[in-house]
Amino acid sequence: MRIAELSERTGTSVATIKYYLREGLLPRGEPTGRNQATYDERHIRRLRLIRALVDVGGLSIAATRDLLQHLDEPGVSIGRQLNQAMDTVTRARSTGYAGDREPARRFVDELVERRSWAIDRDDPAYGNLVDVIAVIAAMQGPAGEALLADIDRFAQVAEVAARGDIAVVAQAAESDDAVEIAVVGTILGDALIAALRRLAQFDEAGRVFRRPGGS
Amino acid sequence: MRIAELSERTGTSVATIKYYLREGLLPRGEPTGRNQATYDERHIRRLRLIRALVDVGGLSIAATRDLLQHLDEPGVSIGRQLNQAMDTVTRARSTGYAGDREPARRFVDELVERRSWAIDRDDPAYGNLVDVIAVIAAMQGPAGEALLADIDRFAQVAEVAARGDIAVVAQAAESDDAVEIAVVGTILGDALIAALRRLAQFDEAGRVFRRPGGS
Repeated sequence: MRIAELSERTGTSVATIKYYLREGLLPRGEPTGRNQATYDERHIRRLRLIRALVDVGGLSIAATRDLLQHLDEPGVSIGRQLNQAMDTVTRARSTGYAGDREPARRFVDELVERRSWAIDRDDPAYGNLVDVIAVIAAMQGPAGEALLADIDRFAQVAEVAARGDIAVVAQAAESDDAVEIAVVGTILGDALIAALRRLAQFDEAGRVFRRPGGS
Repeated sequence: MRIAELSERTGTSVATIKYYLREGLLPRGEPTGRNQATYDERHIRRLRLIRALVDVGGLSIAATRDLLQHLDEPGVSIGRQLNQAMDTVTRARSTGYAGDREPARRFVDELVERRSWAIDRDDPAYGNLVDVIAVIAAMQGPAGEALLADIDRFAQVAEVAARGDIAVVAQAAESDDAVEIAVVGTILGDALIAALRRLAQFDEAGRVFRRPGGS
């Protein structure tokens, strides 16, 4: 198909498609003339994946490109591909916190010990959590304190999510789509949990604050 | 204190502070001369809140300004203030999805019925979830399908989170900080859940994929 049809079928403007082509997010089409190329279903699928990662996942163009490169890498084991892809995403979420990280590191270490998590301090996920905790602690207000006091509750929520996540990946482990399922499930899963949490809060608030005869 | 000390104590450059002042995120200091002003502890606290919402929460400058306006509004009931603040945040997360929303709307309605959630279709949280589902469904690949097949699992995670969220807000309901606690808890709570989920995935993956003698 021509670029106009690719645009129409994905709801993405031709200018945006050309930008993704230039930035290397979308592979070039098959050349059919000096300034023309033809695209196929793989381009449609890739374009929809890019839009989901950027629009819903909130990834930058650079992070999306890095991530897609890992998805495309041939001859790499699924486990390694998955680790690389997740590292890329986690690094992309860095907060750029510039202050002292030591107190946050101790806070995370204590949490990891309480939860008996077997993790590697070299995982970008560890540094990312330290970052987030450091920024929250730096707020020094009651809102930040309430969040940190509640860290085990959030950790429990994360454990429930992670148990399901890994079960899904384990089930898909043999398929070609395992890495894409893991990466998309993690990035868009974050957005999905956030959106569902907001709606569940409305339901729960109604139960707690407005229930007739409730306390 | 002078702007230089405000900068030092919050790890925020003077240029960034001036930008926040111009954009109305940070209230002006007390003027002490033609081009000078003095700042106090409230500016420090507000600046740290802004940094957390922008750097970790991923909010835009415009969304942060709208949100802070709701936090500052005098004479509005806590319930109303809270609703307005959450509406602002949810709207700020809009994906700009341009396609047909009807199938996603039906999907969400069925979920809401299965979960027995009492919610209002006018809540921005409802429209936001429809948006996220629409983008995921539009991907039309195995990764999107896996996510949507798992929607009840994610909803359960969200329910556990929301139950704790509302309990914390109910406990703080009488205090001046209730709205800030609710808003910060929701926005930074999303980032916290995402970071914890990533680390919990590493732990769980180790258990599932590398356990000696495991299946």
